[in-house]
Amino acid sequence: MKRQTKVSIAVIRRLPRYYRHLTELQRRGVVRISSSALGEDMGLTASQIRQDLFCFGEFGQQGYGYNVDSLREEIGEILGISRGHTLVVLGAGNLGRALLKNFKFANSGFELLAAFDVNDEVGTTVDGVPVYHTDQLEEFLDSHPASVGLLAVPRCAAVPMAERLANAGVRGIWNFTNVELPARPDVIVENVHFSDSLMTLSYLISQGVPQEAEE
Amino acid sequence: MKRQTKVSIAVIRRLPRYYRHLTELQRRGVVRISSSALGEDMGLTASQIRQDLFCFGEFGQQGYGYNVDSLREEIGEILGISRGHTLVVLGAGNLGRALLKNFKFANSGFELLAAFDVNDEVGTTVDGVPVYHTDQLEEFLDSHPASVGLLAVPRCAAVPMAERLANAGVRGIWNFTNVELPARPDVIVENVHFSDSLMTLSYLISQGVPQEAEE
Repeated sequence: MKRQTKVSIAVIRRLPRYYRHLTELQRRGVVRISSSALGEDMGLTASQIRQDLFCFGEFGQQGYGYNVDSLREEIGEILGISRGHTLVVLGAGNLGRALLKNFKFANSGFELLAAFDVNDEVGTTVDGVPVYHTDQLEEFLDSHPASVGLLAVPRCAAVPMAERLANAGVRGIWNFTNVELPARPDVIVENVHFSDSLMTLSYLISQGVPQEAEE
Repeated sequence: MKRQTKVSIAVIRRLPRYYRHLTELQRRGVVRISSSALGEDMGLTASQIRQDLFCFGEFGQQGYGYNVDSLREEIGEILGISRGHTLVVLGAGNLGRALLKNFKFANSGFELLAAFDVNDEVGTTVDGVPVYHTDQLEEFLDSHPASVGLLAVPRCAAVPMAERLANAGVRGIWNFTNVELPARPDVIVENVHFSDSLMTLSYLISQGVPQEAEE
């Protein structure tokens, strides 16, 4: 499959949405779908969809549309969800526990290895996931390399814990702390800023914009 | 201030990032900043920034740059964070509690009124916020109108609770349930899909893309 070398981050950010919608279509037993119908589901134009998917090669056929199963599989492949990524969770407070208990890491292609904390949780398991003391982080990662560290620690611990994760060889940090982490060439930081989402909603209800908020 | 009538959702979604960065600059005592320096901080080009802000009117001056305080205030105004929005939280499980305890609703312009649940939490307070039984939702909203309902209930309760919120007059639903809610003309739904963020990170570490993940 040919790929363009430079794909914009905006297109990349839409891929998980395609993947979600295709998963839902598959669940509903839809076999193929036109770009205009897919666009309608997702609040995008048919031409936008054709352009997005063209960045990654040729999918679909003129007049036939897209085969749901194979498009979903291809996009999953592009997203790297079958690459055996692994993940550790730093911080087993309310947010960490909420993610440990409810988030389906496997559906995004991640195996959840362990959680780390400094308090009473240590030595317990949360839904089968062991919680170790943060002091054991480096030793653990030495024998169980993790692709990504999920950072759900208190703000004051964010920068030092990110540093420790990076030094221990993780390639990505999924940052829920709302702290801006110093850039490093060897680690990609993906920030989850709840406030961005709430402020967008604030804008949309203030304007009374009758459009789907999601994009 | 003139405004273009049609502003793309992509631009709108960048506004909270501007607001965050400007808040940080203000905290550091920066008085004015050029579009190129602001762009560097945010991983955008100077021309992108000028284009974005032009959608909402004229900010900044050629050769002077932007005044941090007034640009931050204007963007806050556009985002509607001084409009006295109010919010109720549905679901005081791990995720609901994590948000109740840690998320600074006031920083996004929302006054947190109450939380609702069906279990043991009812009758307690979480960081000063009262938790009522979900049965009392309509009665409460009748006397305390909420602009937005934060949905952090179990999946099976998502659609009926969204319906009840909408019928009780909320204008927006901040949806953390990962359930696609049926569209209604009178309510804007803002979905928080953690998986989209994790899959983007999966893509970026799979490609070894040395760019800031955030956009």
